[in-house]
Amino acid sequence: MTSIAAVLEGRDLISMRDFTRDELLAFLDEAERFEDFERPIMAGKIMGSLFFEPSTRTHLSFTSAVQRLGGTTLGFADARVSSTAKGESLADTIRMVENYCDIILIRHHLEGAARLAAESSNLPVVNAGDGTNQHPTQTLLDLYTIRQKRGRLDNLKIAFVGDLKYSRTVHSLIETLTHFDNEIFLISPTSLRIPSEFLEDLDARGTVYSEDEDFFSLSSDVDIIYTTRIQEERFPDPIEYEKVKNAYRIDLETMLRVGTEVTLMHPLPRVNEIATDLDDYPGAAYFDQARNGVTVRKAVLCMLLGIDRD
Amino acid sequence: MTSIAAVLEGRDLISMRDFTRDELLAFLDEAERFEDFERPIMAGKIMGSLFFEPSTRTHLSFTSAVQRLGGTTLGFADARVSSTAKGESLADTIRMVENYCDIILIRHHLEGAARLAAESSNLPVVNAGDGTNQHPTQTLLDLYTIRQKRGRLDNLKIAFVGDLKYSRTVHSLIETLTHFDNEIFLISPTSLRIPSEFLEDLDARGTVYSEDEDFFSLSSDVDIIYTTRIQEERFPDPIEYEKVKNAYRIDLETMLRVGTEVTLMHPLPRVNEIATDLDDYPGAAYFDQARNGVTVRKAVLCMLLGIDRD
Amino acid sequence: MTSIAAVLEGRDLISMRDFTRDELLAFLDEAERFEDFERPIMAGKIMGSLFFEPSTRTHLSFTSAVQRLGGTTLGFADARVSSTAKGESLADTIRMVENYCDIILIRHHLEGAARLAAESSNLPVVNAGDGTNQHPTQTLLDLYTIRQKRGRLDNLKIAFVGDLKYSRTVHSLIETLTHFDNEIFLISPTSLRIPSEFLEDLDARGTVYSEDEDFFSLSSDVDIIYTTRIQEERFPDPIEYEKVKNAYRIDLETMLRVGTEVTLMHPLPRVNEIATDLDDYPGAAYFDQARNGVTVRKAVLCMLLGIDRD
Repeated sequence: MTSIAAVLEGRDLISMRDFTRDELLAFLDEAERFEDFERPIMAGKIMGSLFFEPSTRTHLSFTSAVQRLGGTTLGFADARVSSTAKGESLADTIRMVENYCDIILIRHHLEGAARLAAESSNLPVVNAGDGTNQHPTQTLLDLYTIRQKRGRLDNLKIAFVGDLKYSRTVHSLIETLTHFDNEIFLISPTSLRIPSEFLEDLDARGTVYSEDEDFFSLSSDVDIIYTTRIQEERFPDPIEYEKVKNAYRIDLETMLRVGTEVTLMHPLPRVNEIATDLDDYPGAAYFDQARNGVTVRKAVLCMLLGIDRD
Repeated sequence: MTSIAAVLEGRDLISMRDFTRDELLAFLDEAERFEDFERPIMAGKIMGSLFFEPSTRTHLSFTSAVQRLGGTTLGFADARVSSTAKGESLADTIRMVENYCDIILIRHHLEGAARLAAESSNLPVVNAGDGTNQHPTQTLLDLYTIRQKRGRLDNLKIAFVGDLKYSRTVHSLIETLTHFDNEIFLISPTSLRIPSEFLEDLDARGTVYSEDEDFFSLSSDVDIIYTTRIQEERFPDPIEYEKVKNAYRIDLETMLRVGTEVTLMHPLPRVNEIATDLDDYPGAAYFDQARNGVTVRKAVLCMLLGIDRD
Repeated sequence: MTSIAAVLEGRDLISMRDFTRDELLAFLDEAERFEDFERPIMAGKIMGSLFFEPSTRTHLSFTSAVQRLGGTTLGFADARVSSTAKGESLADTIRMVENYCDIILIRHHLEGAARLAAESSNLPVVNAGDGTNQHPTQTLLDLYTIRQKRGRLDNLKIAFVGDLKYSRTVHSLIETLTHFDNEIFLISPTSLRIPSEFLEDLDARGTVYSEDEDFFSLSSDVDIIYTTRIQEERFPDPIEYEKVKNAYRIDLETMLRVGTEVTLMHPLPRVNEIATDLDDYPGAAYFDQARNGVTVRKAVLCMLLGIDRD
């Protein structure tokens, strides 16, 4: 077993903040070994999958990872079909479910729910998204994709475009990238600027960054453009959403003005922020992200369960 | 591998119109070999099961087919628990899901959705019903049941009774039967007559048929009576539904007036169009259809995946 | 195979009333052998799981039992995603589903639904709760837990506290305990007293019992306190619910006044009737009940399917 696997065994995966730079690199090395790997090394293992908030992509990606390795899943995809509807506390639900499975996956609309779940359980717990807070396997697959496409995690020019205020995905990736030495470009409407705490963090870590409203302020040597859906459900006020929802539609023509060798990333689902004519752009990496999600999650599950790939 | 398996391997199953007569016969021969067959030849294979419109019967039947052969399934049973709710296009959902599985099953309320899915994916796609259009495995199991009960697919007198206007099941079976040489009886209220395009098709293919409103116009040498539920959800106007919903209730007494050796078919679920006293009628074949559905679907999945039964 | 397994093979599990005292004891002996047992002796077997009424706990517990033994499940967790919504009768749903699986698990809001399902099917049927009537595996796991914690099923002082009028769990356990020789204490508000038919049953079977409203009427040598959630959904009148919902909140201080060696049971989910500071009380057995549920259900499934543990 590699050292990173030894580090993660029996632990929980709640927040990217729990990783050091070396642990991240070791994790990515280990994850690579799960690419296209399909032997039943999880046979007999059950993942309890508790989606208090629906999520097709994350749910199916984890389920696929488990099934590819011969394990099984049980749980619910929807809080309406859960005993929470009868007034049960989260801690009690966890203490019930840990009798039925070997590892717990939880998505919840409240920040901190995954940490509470981990504290309530003797089993490893994986955070599949707690409100606007953390979704660590999304960040891990993003890092995995960046390294896969650019061959490194340092010395990159990385632009984040769109909703930088509410996007959990963007916050977590930016924060994690401070372990590495890159230049960050933050492109958003004024009303969706990144919260100042993240800028303070970038300053503290010595990461060079700039903010702009203009997409075309990006220079042609940018390596990565990471865009996100403007998520209506995160806006307290629907009028604010209407104002900005179409702020940064990108199509093939737009991209060609910026560069021809950019890696274009998006956590999906997209609505209209990336035109479908970009699907043939050579740097379009968003469907690869979905694919890498399964690889990364196979690695996470095995490490937390202490299952050796070999 | 048989020639029909070779024909289907890597293809999609979207419409019965894609089959020739010889392919249909070859398919039924191959399907027969899956009767009561339960070895894990789909071990390691994942069916992605996307039900944008709920369907207990089709969903469970396909799931059973996969599990009987040692495969697994993932997906959703309900569009509310899907990223479509966040505005994702069908093509994007398919391109996401194809990273998680080996074959895609789709039911959708829109005509053409399954074809679009097939065009969006490199994986085999099976249409489990697209609106009022096609539901090919239903037609295959109906053909399978006819041949099982009557020993042949030619020289039969086949009556369709009830909703001939909206019933996808009836339309597809009638169309497919034009590959064979049979006599068709079409019994419906005037407001639920079969659309004229299907009559033109019967004419063009030289199939003998007649239309009537009177159930008792059927002669006692009819071989098969195929009835359907009058589907309230297909009616644009609820008043039209109320007028005809009880038009052709059949009970044991009714059937005995028509004949004692008729094969009585129905795609289920029934509401009250077939009385429960008919369940003991020797020709009652509707629960056999449910059973044959699993057999036929095992065959379809294996052929499309290129898995040899032997 | 043990004699109890032979007794249950091919039968249904619908009501605790179908068991004799000897059968109960034989069942518990057999169930003990499934503790921590995880070999794939159900490989190839499918449980059809029909939840017309949602239930996280029972659903996941049975699913875990099946998966721990290598079997698979299919079905629905919610009547909205079932063909009942199209007007299908329960008998027809059962006759459809029995083509897809090897054993049927049913929860339904109507009393008698499980018995009807068993009469409609050739497969073994397990009642996972039919309205206010029976939920036999809950009673079996309660008995299992009592014997595990106290070492016997006779000569115990057992108190039932809270809703004794509507609680199916309490009714079934009290009724089943009449096979054994114990003293029963019934503590409830006047409006939630146990229905007189159960008292008549206790009289007829010679079981000693007493009724009281005061929790502190319990003496310190009580062996077991079994409390229940006051289930809002069982009350015809919400005002009646409001009056009694907080009648018997128990916390650590309360328990220490009664005794220090009491086994404290609850079917879960709890709302506020057991304070969380009781989770560290040595006799708190409610999470053990959840764990024992999987053990008992593994045994039930194997016995009904005629699968030998050895």
